[in-house]
Amino acid sequence: MSTSSLLEQEVTRSLHDVAQQLRVDSVRCSATASSGHPTSALSAADLMAVLLARHLRYDFTNPDAPGNDHLIFSKGHAAPLYYAMLRAVGAISDDELLTYRTARSRLEGHPTPRLPWVDVATGSLGQGLPIGVGLAMAGKHLDRLPYRVWVLCGDGELAEGSMWEAAEQAQHSRLGNLTAIVDVNRLGQRGPTRHGWDTAAYAARFRAFGWHAQEIDGHDIAAVDHALSVAAAHADAPSVILARTRKGKGVTAVENMENAHGKPVPGPGQAIRELGGVRDIRVRVAPPPACPVPAHLTAAPPAPRRPVPVRPASTRPAPPRLLTPVPPAPRASQSGNTEAEAARRRPPAYEPGTMESTRTGFGQALAALGSWRRDIVVLDSEVSDSTRTAYFAQAHPDRFFEYYIAEQQMIAAAVGMQVRGWTPFAATYAAFLTRAYDFIRMAAVSRANIRLVGSHSGVWTGADGPSQMALEDIAALRAVHGSTVLVPCDANQAAGLTATMADLRGISYLRTCGGETPVIYRPGERFAAGGSRVLRSAPGDQVTLVAAGVTVHEALAAADLLADDGISARVIDAYSVKPIDAATLRAAARETGRVVTAEDHWPEGGLGDAVLSALAADDRPLPVVKKLAVRSMPGSATPDEQLQMSGIDMASIATAAAQLVGH
Amino acid sequence: MSTSSLLEQEVTRSLHDVAQQLRVDSVRCSATASSGHPTSALSAADLMAVLLARHLRYDFTNPDAPGNDHLIFSKGHAAPLYYAMLRAVGAISDDELLTYRTARSRLEGHPTPRLPWVDVATGSLGQGLPIGVGLAMAGKHLDRLPYRVWVLCGDGELAEGSMWEAAEQAQHSRLGNLTAIVDVNRLGQRGPTRHGWDTAAYAARFRAFGWHAQEIDGHDIAAVDHALSVAAAHADAPSVILARTRKGKGVTAVENMENAHGKPVPGPGQAIRELGGVRDIRVRVAPPPACPVPAHLTAAPPAPRRPVPVRPASTRPAPPRLLTPVPPAPRASQSGNTEAEAARRRPPAYEPGTMESTRTGFGQALAALGSWRRDIVVLDSEVSDSTRTAYFAQAHPDRFFEYYIAEQQMIAAAVGMQVRGWTPFAATYAAFLTRAYDFIRMAAVSRANIRLVGSHSGVWTGADGPSQMALEDIAALRAVHGSTVLVPCDANQAAGLTATMADLRGISYLRTCGGETPVIYRPGERFAAGGSRVLRSAPGDQVTLVAAGVTVHEALAAADLLADDGISARVIDAYSVKPIDAATLRAAARETGRVVTAEDHWPEGGLGDAVLSALAADDRPLPVVKKLAVRSMPGSATPDEQLQMSGIDMASIATAAAQLVGH
Repeated sequence: MSTSSLLEQEVTRSLHDVAQQLRVDSVRCSATASSGHPTSALSAADLMAVLLARHLRYDFTNPDAPGNDHLIFSKGHAAPLYYAMLRAVGAISDDELLTYRTARSRLEGHPTPRLPWVDVATGSLGQGLPIGVGLAMAGKHLDRLPYRVWVLCGDGELAEGSMWEAAEQAQHSRLGNLTAIVDVNRLGQRGPTRHGWDTAAYAARFRAFGWHAQEIDGHDIAAVDHALSVAAAHADAPSVILARTRKGKGVTAVENMENAHGKPVPGPGQAIRELGGVRDIRVRVAPPPACPVPAHLTAAPPAPRRPVPVRPASTRPAPPRLLTPVPPAPRASQSGNTEAEAARRRPPAYEPGTMESTRTGFGQALAALGSWRRDIVVLDSEVSDSTRTAYFAQAHPDRFFEYYIAEQQMIAAAVGMQVRGWTPFAATYAAFLTRAYDFIRMAAVSRANIRLVGSHSGVWTGADGPSQMALEDIAALRAVHGSTVLVPCDANQAAGLTATMADLRGISYLRTCGGETPVIYRPGERFAAGGSRVLRSAPGDQVTLVAAGVTVHEALAAADLLADDGISARVIDAYSVKPIDAATLRAAARETGRVVTAEDHWPEGGLGDAVLSALAADDRPLPVVKKLAVRSMPGSATPDEQLQMSGIDMASIATAAAQLVGH
Repeated sequence: MSTSSLLEQEVTRSLHDVAQQLRVDSVRCSATASSGHPTSALSAADLMAVLLARHLRYDFTNPDAPGNDHLIFSKGHAAPLYYAMLRAVGAISDDELLTYRTARSRLEGHPTPRLPWVDVATGSLGQGLPIGVGLAMAGKHLDRLPYRVWVLCGDGELAEGSMWEAAEQAQHSRLGNLTAIVDVNRLGQRGPTRHGWDTAAYAARFRAFGWHAQEIDGHDIAAVDHALSVAAAHADAPSVILARTRKGKGVTAVENMENAHGKPVPGPGQAIRELGGVRDIRVRVAPPPACPVPAHLTAAPPAPRRPVPVRPASTRPAPPRLLTPVPPAPRASQSGNTEAEAARRRPPAYEPGTMESTRTGFGQALAALGSWRRDIVVLDSEVSDSTRTAYFAQAHPDRFFEYYIAEQQMIAAAVGMQVRGWTPFAATYAAFLTRAYDFIRMAAVSRANIRLVGSHSGVWTGADGPSQMALEDIAALRAVHGSTVLVPCDANQAAGLTATMADLRGISYLRTCGGETPVIYRPGERFAAGGSRVLRSAPGDQVTLVAAGVTVHEALAAADLLADDGISARVIDAYSVKPIDAATLRAAARETGRVVTAEDHWPEGGLGDAVLSALAADDRPLPVVKKLAVRSMPGSATPDEQLQMSGIDMASIATAAAQLVGH
């Protein structure tokens, strides 16, 4: 036997020992927790041992090193394995390992960025790979750095359509820097998966989608090592390694058995002995190549991403840093024509009294902002002409990304890109953001900073009918932890809020409309999250009308109608539905004693509920509040007919207010 | 030339004339509406002309005929083509055709079941095929009738992951009765699709997913006819026809041009002339085979599905028909052992004072209900052991359907099955229903009757961490038109609500928990939608505690703590969060003057907002209301620690109430 093959045998033996340590530690921490997913960890231990010791390039002492690879556990329930890896590299202590799943531990049931080495939260299956696609796109098209993205996937989660959105996007973007490692352990939660160990079925699908696919025995250390080398070398297309494994591998009591999912292994002492006992091997991970910090991070450094506090001090986003009034002077090197460049950077301005859509105000402001905020990237799903991100696409094609009709992949990519410090805006019809609601929910768990923009909100969308109308978007987006929900009513306000959003943390959402509304605000006016505008106010106001978006104009017209009847109405533009300007609303409620809210949204969870909640938090008896909202299923009609038929037009608002006043 | 080929030429000419009529009518109705999607109709006109005249089996005078084929326009924006087809078969008049997209017309911008021939609403792309899979599964596995399901798809929507969930499920169920016809017109809304006219790329993907695929010229009448025949004859696997077409086909001004999406063709007069002018060909469609009405429809006839009123008279569901106290006697033919059968039909009963989970109450009740309600079908996405639909799966394997980890396909299949009069319950972790939120939203537009069940709601889920905890589900499901949201707090209540749900119309949702709670209600007690239970009440109550689900038990304990401090608290179990029992809440608010709500949910859009909204609708000043809810991102912890850390446990409730009372 040659020296080299002896050496190889030695390496293989060491890697097997590392894998056994990962198994033992997975068993130990779940046993201590009396819960968790050790069997899903055991199947993938060989895959991860080889990756960690031989292929990953990562500095665990500096998780923000720009050249670090990214490793995502798309099968987030295999968290014990990830935590065992952290112990093996010395990132966490053995004591911390054993805090898995306990109160206040960073080692949650599924990984979250409370750990500085975790990019994104997983645990809702089918999300890690699409987010990995976003990271790989950032590496290839934005950062232009040689880091690789490795995603450990479960076989069961290949049933999620989002995985195939990712497969399609990855081949389209030729993501040679992306490798999916699928732990084909044949068993889901309640029994066998659809394809069992038929890795050929998966390989055929991935190959049809343009991927490089390898089928291997996931417990054959040498085969795993070879496959990872081949995948890393395959530069022209994304790679998938389909690894046949046995769930619970190495522990006779659970290996390849049903009904062993999501619970500690029985008899952990015996299992640990069977696995060779507790080890303390320290794995040395290859450092990343030295890379410069990308320009977008040095030019406009975002607030430090790490460490993330265990609990945010407040669910309200930090006060926004507002758009600086005069954009910084362009560097001569960037543009030979500084005058033209200055013009590009100038935020759009709409003349009060003219008509313009909020979507155009957003789109033009975003394009201008992108001219000096080089960290802004924009994502759309095949409707950039409607959402008006087309302005940005035209001005900054290198930072615009088309996701075709795949909203889940679009949001996932935004989450992936913000991991690298980019500032993503993702846009589609507001109604179709519902397609990605689970991704938005999880983005909040990931502590991600992403900006969502939805056009064509409400019945005011008109003739297209209810399939195209967002009528639940405010409810859905309010119910996202730490979110900001902004609803502009004119183009200047939309432009101002776009600038505000660029500096918000967490999940923010801008709700725009397709049709044109009167411009009522001055160009350049600033609108903070948490603010409002009192548009009409007089001593002795008898009722307060609260509106947002298109209903602001109806409320203003209603105030005119009421004035004709001798009723003095205050009008508040509650453009920030979350956080809502509670102080202004409470003052108005106290002073006028009666409130009418009007919204182009279902009655549940929207502006009206937000107003009620703000008033209730006053800890004193509430005024009379009348909520106007869309209460019947709309069909097709003109925008104005829709408002009227839904009872949220000027006449309906005036009638409701007059009734409250007792006229 | 032989007689037969002359005849074929004649047939082809006639079919071409039909197609041109469909084109002309698509142009006419969009021109009249001054909006709409004629170009997306023109590309598919030949495909639909041949289908209608030569392959569809459908009685347009009787859309409920059990043998009718089903035709779904997954590319719902091609609605003008569908409406032109309805005119061609005489189902609608020319006058009605020209009402397209106008107020009160049944011909909305995208098809909805306001038209009796439309099974489901489309317009959110990527949903028609998954719903078609549900219909085809009903045909093959439930109705066992020979109808075929034809789905017209766009090429752009193949980017949606849900289409590949459908592809996977269709091959798994060997749906030879399903044909997808893809109109590959190369152009999306804002420009070229990812694969353009590369039908081979799509064919490779479908074949890898186990489908029979044909690539044809979609304007070659004979090729279309042949392909449809082959597809219909292919009995072992689903079929896809990938038809290369030209968007705007036949109208020079728009044919194969960008920027012609979603707008009427310019110069409609010239376009109509170019297409050969207005025609009045009446197409005779082959009748369906005579089929018996399926037993599940005769045994327990649901309320008539058609016609659907333009606007529901009320957003509240009809009063439920309650579970009959004694299930009907089993027919001897169904069971040799009537005693055993009676036992199977008996709803579960849990002894007050014992501990049981609401998910088990639901699961066991559903299994019992399924023994005499033969119309009930159950769908799960790989977590039946957790949701407890496993009880039903064991008792009624022929009516249980496993969708693996594909929540969008699961909901779509439920929508498809209810089209055929089945009564579907679809279950997964409550958090993962967010994955299918767009499908749930659209199900409401479809006027579908489906029942959703989500387990593991709230922080009380415990150690698994936030990815597995539904904390936005009540907000999301309340904001669905006409929905019912039910939150049981004990196993008997869960069982009772399960029976209630079986008779509800619209979208209903049951929120269950993983852990065990004390049984506080009697076995067999009935719980109507819109009801509540006052669990503690005394003259002189100083504060009302409103809770649902796990917080009911915390509120009861809080009332005990308060009583120790001399404070008398009323406790209301608001198990029906929507519709909520406004009368009981208002009475309590008036009598006690102070309300504390406690929910295991984010503060937005949940129980607290529902209570505030109900109290506000009283049109009188509101009492002081204090909302307790989950306000910080949870991590892992025990269920009880979670309640305490989130401030919704008994101590937090008691403290809040005492503060309101002024102690």
